[in-house]
Amino acid sequence: MPEVQKLQGVRRAVVLLSGGLDSYTAGAIARAEGYELLALTIRYGQIHDREIAAARLVARALGVVKHIELDVNLAAFGGSALVGEGDVPKDRPLDTNEGIPSTYVPARNTIFLSLALAWAEVAGAGAIVIGVNALDYSGYPDCRPEYLEAFERLATLATRGGVEGQSLEILAPLLRMTKADIIRRGTALGLDYGLTHSCYDPDAHGRPCGRCDSCQLRARGFREAGIADPVRA
Amino acid sequence: MPEVQKLQGVRRAVVLLSGGLDSYTAGAIARAEGYELLALTIRYGQIHDREIAAARLVARALGVVKHIELDVNLAAFGGSALVGEGDVPKDRPLDTNEGIPSTYVPARNTIFLSLALAWAEVAGAGAIVIGVNALDYSGYPDCRPEYLEAFERLATLATRGGVEGQSLEILAPLLRMTKADIIRRGTALGLDYGLTHSCYDPDAHGRPCGRCDSCQLRARGFREAGIADPVRA
Repeated sequence: MPEVQKLQGVRRAVVLLSGGLDSYTAGAIARAEGYELLALTIRYGQIHDREIAAARLVARALGVVKHIELDVNLAAFGGSALVGEGDVPKDRPLDTNEGIPSTYVPARNTIFLSLALAWAEVAGAGAIVIGVNALDYSGYPDCRPEYLEAFERLATLATRGGVEGQSLEILAPLLRMTKADIIRRGTALGLDYGLTHSCYDPDAHGRPCGRCDSCQLRARGFREAGIADPVRA
Repeated sequence: MPEVQKLQGVRRAVVLLSGGLDSYTAGAIARAEGYELLALTIRYGQIHDREIAAARLVARALGVVKHIELDVNLAAFGGSALVGEGDVPKDRPLDTNEGIPSTYVPARNTIFLSLALAWAEVAGAGAIVIGVNALDYSGYPDCRPEYLEAFERLATLATRGGVEGQSLEILAPLLRMTKADIIRRGTALGLDYGLTHSCYDPDAHGRPCGRCDSCQLRARGFREAGIADPVRA
């Protein structure tokens, strides 16, 4: 599975856009490499809509050709603090080795990539862009490189294009970057991180809590990059 | 990827139930092998709701522990006659080698299996049952054995269970059966195929057209099995 690279003749990609800074940066890197972007945001039963609003702003900033927001109610299955089951953990020490946290949404990336695959096939896109990250991945199994390689193999077998000899690439340009690297790269590309939202548990006004894993990882990333976060917790 | 077999300690399976006779039979075979069933029906923007009604009847007949109907609007991506784009082909000769038909829904099985995977992980199910068939598969790429094997590999990498050393099996008991074999097997298991619906393009009263690929395959299956179809086209 390659990191983003230029491909001959394949110039369109579906980017999975969450409204967070990772997927924004991943999309911007693909765009800088020459891809025309289609943005897909999945409304999966998040306990807050703040990140959907952020995804719209980010899609516009990326100049995407089209933005689809698709409802998939993963809360029907339960099993994650991110769809309203149990509390989002706060003030958890980063870099502990305590396994998969309660914010893990079962099979989320598999579902998201499958939906992106459907659109990619219809739209003739040769790539899917996803902002996953193996270093700051918080212990989620579906952010590992071997997982993404397995999905790429599956995608080629699953589709009309695959049958006809085309391949579909999963582009994960952030895979081996730290959060600080990501923020530096995006800042160099001129991105406005003030549009983004990372918090798992914002208040009623959409303001980040500053204490969940995602807020902590974001704060550390900006600190290590030596850049001020335009979104203040 | 094994056909259905007894497993030690793993006794729960998520069955993807469409309302057609294949998924009904696949579920019944798994149940006969000792699995407790959870049924998942995806409302993916079908141009008719007749098969959802059939899925409810079939779920009840199978005695499932729980039945979830989940909306995923694949029509947002377009690209298939089954979600209202173009006409469903009629009177197409069976067994022609004319490639993937317009009723193919891009990435459908990948999306369905991913959603089943999410529920399986939450519910502690060790298997997913899918009624795909490689002989009568109408040229769909995501009904091939190598595709299912790739998904099974992906599922193990994607999940908490996989990280913790458990595997998830994709059970496709119909994979190498003809439609006639399937109907004979289901009839031997006492299934009531009068509950099922197979047509891609029913009339306003939900009656099958008798002319689409699915109706033709069904009719040929009953004819070859020497059994009368309780649903008359």
